[in-house]
Amino acid sequence: MAGEAKDAEGAVGAPGGGAPRRRPKSEQTRTLILETALRLFEERGYDRTTMRAVASEAGVSVGNAYYYFASKEHLVQGFYERIGAEHRAAARTVLAQERNLTERLRGVYLTWFDVAEPYHGFAAQFFRNAADPDSPLSPFSPESRPAREAAVALLREALSGARVNGDPELAELLPEVLWLHQMGLVLYWVYDRSPGCSRSRALADRTAPLTARAVALSRWRVLRPLVRDVRHVLEDFVLPTAAGAAGRGRDGPPHT
Amino acid sequence: MAGEAKDAEGAVGAPGGGAPRRRPKSEQTRTLILETALRLFEERGYDRTTMRAVASEAGVSVGNAYYYFASKEHLVQGFYERIGAEHRAAARTVLAQERNLTERLRGVYLTWFDVAEPYHGFAAQFFRNAADPDSPLSPFSPESRPAREAAVALLREALSGARVNGDPELAELLPEVLWLHQMGLVLYWVYDRSPGCSRSRALADRTAPLTARAVALSRWRVLRPLVRDVRHVLEDFVLPTAAGAAGRGRDGPPHT
Repeated sequence: MAGEAKDAEGAVGAPGGGAPRRRPKSEQTRTLILETALRLFEERGYDRTTMRAVASEAGVSVGNAYYYFASKEHLVQGFYERIGAEHRAAARTVLAQERNLTERLRGVYLTWFDVAEPYHGFAAQFFRNAADPDSPLSPFSPESRPAREAAVALLREALSGARVNGDPELAELLPEVLWLHQMGLVLYWVYDRSPGCSRSRALADRTAPLTARAVALSRWRVLRPLVRDVRHVLEDFVLPTAAGAAGRGRDGPPHT
Repeated sequence: MAGEAKDAEGAVGAPGGGAPRRRPKSEQTRTLILETALRLFEERGYDRTTMRAVASEAGVSVGNAYYYFASKEHLVQGFYERIGAEHRAAARTVLAQERNLTERLRGVYLTWFDVAEPYHGFAAQFFRNAADPDSPLSPFSPESRPAREAAVALLREALSGARVNGDPELAELLPEVLWLHQMGLVLYWVYDRSPGCSRSRALADRTAPLTARAVALSRWRVLRPLVRDVRHVLEDFVLPTAAGAAGRGRDGPPHT
């Protein structure tokens, strides 16, 4: 998303844009503030980094910093957007080449670790704030909705380009289920101390075929009631905040 | 465990034990320190409660407090032990009456919420420390092993007393899988803001039959490869810290 907006703005002819970087000044300032913030999160930790310090280090006024990011939480959303855009670019090179669902999922998960690697240093401290679903930093929060929807859309792409024959009733929900799986991998990675986060990579590597197998099995008649119950629990307890209340058809009363 | 130890010690005739509470003085002091600590965690938060403050509020010397609990983390282990003992007592009244697996699981999960209810106030802040698997406060840590093993044993009881026909290959691992499910419910509860934590209770209520159904389905031949892969992933990535390295037979090489 960030990448697309940048290109679009560059194309209409930004004022003051140099030849190699055809970005408007405002986009450059925004990027500078965001990159400065990420460096300070890394150096000082998220909790001890103030907007004032970010502005000072970036060489802009505090008012200017607040113009681009209304709060420290908005900086985090900017970070989510950026990492998401980088991830989509990296994952799509895999998706363009692979048709097999296991390989497509593996590609999406592993490229996320590649892109996120520079931020691993402050991920654990950062997670202390993001773990609360009511925090604007949580991946489930309304504030994180654009980043979350873009991530779910990427997984929908991974599914739709593969030869998948899952349960049609599950099809609509499946990208969100895969996103939950990805959030599980991210949580594992946050606390991963193995060199190069090799354990997280191995976990993604091993769970990708397992997930693809589960998708295929979801068609079996004997599994239908279980699939349906799992779907209802996810809709009622895990995904309602994430997906928004409306737009998801639930006809019957909750199973009890 | 704490409850059993108390009774056993009381039975041998504790010095200074009054008629209604036949506990030795040392047990009383230990309980007093633990209860004072829990009250201060509630009032001031976990991070801002010091051992010195606990000793002072309990009216014992700092040295005495450290004699019973070598660190603040040991107080937390004492808390885990206590809540575990209360939970087992409450859950066993259900297990004594029910043979149906769904009802037995439901009983175990719901009585945990009953017992934990007084501590919900500081649970979220507390979780910020316990979320890191390397923290001694984590349910996966070596320090938490006695509390964890007692919790897994209770779930083994819940399974063994029911008419269950799951996959025999999964049988050994199943109590730990159910414990992971319980940890998921606890995490949901930690951040639950609904009155009386009714959403967490509803989630336990809905996932108990779903879990029982999954256990029954795990016998189906078509699911065997998936069950086996899930088991291997759990053994290699999630449960090795929890269960300890030895004592778990894995014959073949890791699936890839």
